[in-house]
Amino acid sequence: MSSYNPSNFIQQISIDCTIFGYAEGSLKVLVTHLNFNGDFKALPAGFVYQDESLDEAAYRILVERTGLKDIYLEQFHTFGGKERSHKDFLNKLISLNPEILPEDTILRQETEWFTKRFISVGYYALVDINKVRPTTSTIDKYIGWYDVDELPPLIFDHNEQVKRAQTTLRFFLDEKLLGFNLLPETFTMKELKNVYETVYDRPFRRNNFQKKMLDLNVLERLDKKFTGAANKAPYLYRFKKVP
Amino acid sequence: MSSYNPSNFIQQISIDCTIFGYAEGSLKVLVTHLNFNGDFKALPAGFVYQDESLDEAAYRILVERTGLKDIYLEQFHTFGGKERSHKDFLNKLISLNPEILPEDTILRQETEWFTKRFISVGYYALVDINKVRPTTSTIDKYIGWYDVDELPPLIFDHNEQVKRAQTTLRFFLDEKLLGFNLLPETFTMKELKNVYETVYDRPFRRNNFQKKMLDLNVLERLDKKFTGAANKAPYLYRFKKVP
Repeated sequence: MSSYNPSNFIQQISIDCTIFGYAEGSLKVLVTHLNFNGDFKALPAGFVYQDESLDEAAYRILVERTGLKDIYLEQFHTFGGKERSHKDFLNKLISLNPEILPEDTILRQETEWFTKRFISVGYYALVDINKVRPTTSTIDKYIGWYDVDELPPLIFDHNEQVKRAQTTLRFFLDEKLLGFNLLPETFTMKELKNVYETVYDRPFRRNNFQKKMLDLNVLERLDKKFTGAANKAPYLYRFKKVP
Repeated sequence: MSSYNPSNFIQQISIDCTIFGYAEGSLKVLVTHLNFNGDFKALPAGFVYQDESLDEAAYRILVERTGLKDIYLEQFHTFGGKERSHKDFLNKLISLNPEILPEDTILRQETEWFTKRFISVGYYALVDINKVRPTTSTIDKYIGWYDVDELPPLIFDHNEQVKRAQTTLRFFLDEKLLGFNLLPETFTMKELKNVYETVYDRPFRRNNFQKKMLDLNVLERLDKKFTGAANKAPYLYRFKKVP
């Protein structure tokens, strides 16, 4: 399949991915720098082939950009503002990069589809930063992690998308046990608490947190972690297998 | 604007509305019967004009079908399965209603757009049944309320959409104070409890429920409701105005 042959895609639909990674107590987001003159930064994005579902398209984009399979991703909102046209973006892009405007009429027509208004389905994913191999697409010069609190201005409504994805993430952290993706297979209660504190950006009290987590009835307690000081060694936990 | 002139619409995008109403302790959903031979029932639905946002389109559809303005509606999920083609539906429809297949080539082409795969953005709304005037569209013979637990088979994935809308509704009942739309301006704690019990389909204990609601800090207590027996008269409440 030719990557950008417009007739292969559903018209006026795109997918934007907010890919969260967790490292050393901070929550990060994967951002691309477009390979054009001008300072265009964006969420990893793509289009939907006529013969693939929305979820399949999002998963394909995610795999292409992270090298990871079997990662958790979920649709969280569809952005349908009538001002979401690629035209303004393209106009600015073309004025700074006149060489990309095709002289050829057919090529020009092929560019037309991209200048229409797009409705974008937002997905978010949670990944283990250490396992990710961030991968540029043909239109990126760079892809890398930004701290979620220090995001640069992104094209369209991508900054708003990250905010909304973050709200959803907080909402569903217990419900969907999203912590699973951010931790090694076994972990201490303190490590789990660190994830929660990072996602919610606030402290949790140790005893309350431990009680809350144990009440969820999803953790399995393993042997104590060996630290040399037997009495103070923390227990290791892992998530119970879903039956 | 001609209602079904395809060039006015974003192609391959539709909006389906799960419209919940509450009456006498049961949760109901608005369902249309399509005006064709064959037993086609569906959620109220429509398309998105090129010059309106997704939210505006959903609101327009809702107003057309309920006669209500200023109602709460919210996008909850976008359904993007690759099998969501109108073609199977249209084939069955046409085999039972051969007269609707246009002989004219141009009319036939105009029908083509409708047979493509559609991605549908699901919205749900909460309305006061007593205020709604259910209104058919040009392709419906009937529109009316069905108990959410006794829904007939609907076309496409509309039954699944209702289930998912119901899950979302339960999730957000506190968060978004959705009870607001289902109650008169003032109400007793028992009336509010009835709404919760209907939406969640389970009983709540009176004291726990009252404490939980008061802890939310969104209710304003008014005078007692006059029942003749002064001591047992229940307090009336209303939702605090958002500052």
